[in-house]
Amino acid sequence: MQATRLDTARIRAARRVIDPIFLDTPLYCCEALEPHLGCAVSVKLETANPVRSFKARGTELVTSLLTGVDGRAAAVVCASAGNLGQALAWSGRRRGLDVTVVASRSVPAAKLDRIRALDARLELVDGDFDTARERAAAIARYDGVRLVEDSLDLETCEGAATIGLELVAAVPSFDAVLIALGGGALATGVGHVLKSLAPDVEVICVQPLGAPAMTYSWRRRRVVTTGPTDTIADGVAGRRPIPAVLDDLLLVADDAVLVREASIIAGMRMFLDHAGLVVEPSAALGLAAILEDRDRFAGRHVVTVVCGGNVDPDAYRRWIGVS
Amino acid sequence: MQATRLDTARIRAARRVIDPIFLDTPLYCCEALEPHLGCAVSVKLETANPVRSFKARGTELVTSLLTGVDGRAAAVVCASAGNLGQALAWSGRRRGLDVTVVASRSVPAAKLDRIRALDARLELVDGDFDTARERAAAIARYDGVRLVEDSLDLETCEGAATIGLELVAAVPSFDAVLIALGGGALATGVGHVLKSLAPDVEVICVQPLGAPAMTYSWRRRRVVTTGPTDTIADGVAGRRPIPAVLDDLLLVADDAVLVREASIIAGMRMFLDHAGLVVEPSAALGLAAILEDRDRFAGRHVVTVVCGGNVDPDAYRRWIGVS
Repeated sequence: MQATRLDTARIRAARRVIDPIFLDTPLYCCEALEPHLGCAVSVKLETANPVRSFKARGTELVTSLLTGVDGRAAAVVCASAGNLGQALAWSGRRRGLDVTVVASRSVPAAKLDRIRALDARLELVDGDFDTARERAAAIARYDGVRLVEDSLDLETCEGAATIGLELVAAVPSFDAVLIALGGGALATGVGHVLKSLAPDVEVICVQPLGAPAMTYSWRRRRVVTTGPTDTIADGVAGRRPIPAVLDDLLLVADDAVLVREASIIAGMRMFLDHAGLVVEPSAALGLAAILEDRDRFAGRHVVTVVCGGNVDPDAYRRWIGVS
Repeated sequence: MQATRLDTARIRAARRVIDPIFLDTPLYCCEALEPHLGCAVSVKLETANPVRSFKARGTELVTSLLTGVDGRAAAVVCASAGNLGQALAWSGRRRGLDVTVVASRSVPAAKLDRIRALDARLELVDGDFDTARERAAAIARYDGVRLVEDSLDLETCEGAATIGLELVAAVPSFDAVLIALGGGALATGVGHVLKSLAPDVEVICVQPLGAPAMTYSWRRRRVVTTGPTDTIADGVAGRRPIPAVLDDLLLVADDAVLVREASIIAGMRMFLDHAGLVVEPSAALGLAAILEDRDRFAGRHVVTVVCGGNVDPDAYRRWIGVS
């Protein structure tokens, strides 16, 4: 494999920095899913922690490197689709940092409420995630504080990559890993470790048809931006891929597939009914990919990373409906 | 503390026998619950494993001790309210044992389906859990196979007690632990370890008003049997406490409280809406206890053991309803 921006030794070292509450998350086979999907599905469960997503693996790394000057608390700002902001607020609070999160007004209320509850300053913008990115960058420039750019900043990728270390340590191994694809931190992080240490495991990225920018970019091997996104998978809805992240993704992903909204909802329902798991739409992308291409996965053992579980209760009830 | 039947050294040794997939389960604070409950609530999550309950900690111990004779697979039988049977089937399957589970026809279909799917022989009886206990004992006598008696057999208690070891290792510590009370394996197991190693932590057992036999027995310090149970918390619905288990419970429990069905349902909804957790009714008993006595817990840090997450999807949708 050509070298990505990530470094396996640094990723191993990251385990010593990240609060153990976010490490060594459950990894187990959900046998009750198998009859419905035609393949063995194990989950890597990233929702059973204080922020209900994998993002704190990265924010623990970011914040561990920040120290204040002149007796003032260090400050940090990020744009977030919701989960990064919550994780940065959690990691920053325990280290006494001054955390600002910029988010679109369209982010689920549950995620915004948690960011506020964790003592971060929350600035809402009209527009989408990419509008929030611009605003966060402006705040960083104006206030001279550290900007955390999800997927661009190596800590966000290498934090996520610690999931990969836990996957390659699993016995028995598996055939493929399904990873939600948004900005690319999770996919390049986990993909880097798998391609470095377990290259035979197929790395499959999954994105909603309604937010396909990174998948189009991966397929054309150049950055493709898109118009407004249209998906319930708020966690992965970006339209402007970052060139350096795409370069890494091109080195570690075996495939990138797009799935329909109906499949995402079906995946969420399957997780609830047959695995007892509440997942946010982004975390159901893997099951959606299996549902849309059963032949590809038939008889294989796949792992899907359940990357987040932050949902608005009302929206969740709508999605899971009544049988 | 007077000596219970349990032994802390054996409990420590049990960790080496139990499949690690059931050990070191997530323990974390669900801050979003706090505004609704008036106290800090951490969960010890026993649902993120292949059988979605804590019971495999015990069945791993039981089955590790069974070996066949004359080249035949060892056989084992248990009565189960659903979760023990599923766990015994899982542990028995991986060791090539011949597993029979006796259960009431009233056990949730999801639990029965999983027992069958795990290759156990399932025998259904008219009547309740105590009827199933009689039938399992009869099978054991007639066929000469090992009977696993939940809560009476020390392995079931000491397996559950490994949860206690994980709780006392937690930093920071907490003020009270809320434990679902049914037959008593979980309560005496966790209670034994806490009272041995962290005696200041209050051990509070919680049972439904509709299945109060063990609580009445604990309060009167003698076995009290009751008429038919009436609760959705199927996992803890027994009416004939076991004397030896009551004796242990009297040594380790600081309190035993009864809660209403409406509070159990409110607890399940809170877990879903504010923690993103699917729990079965028995696992919501702890939140129900807080809801019914807020003053008692105000400002304290409590842990509740989320002991199981096996629910029938239709029933679960009914319970969580629409907001």
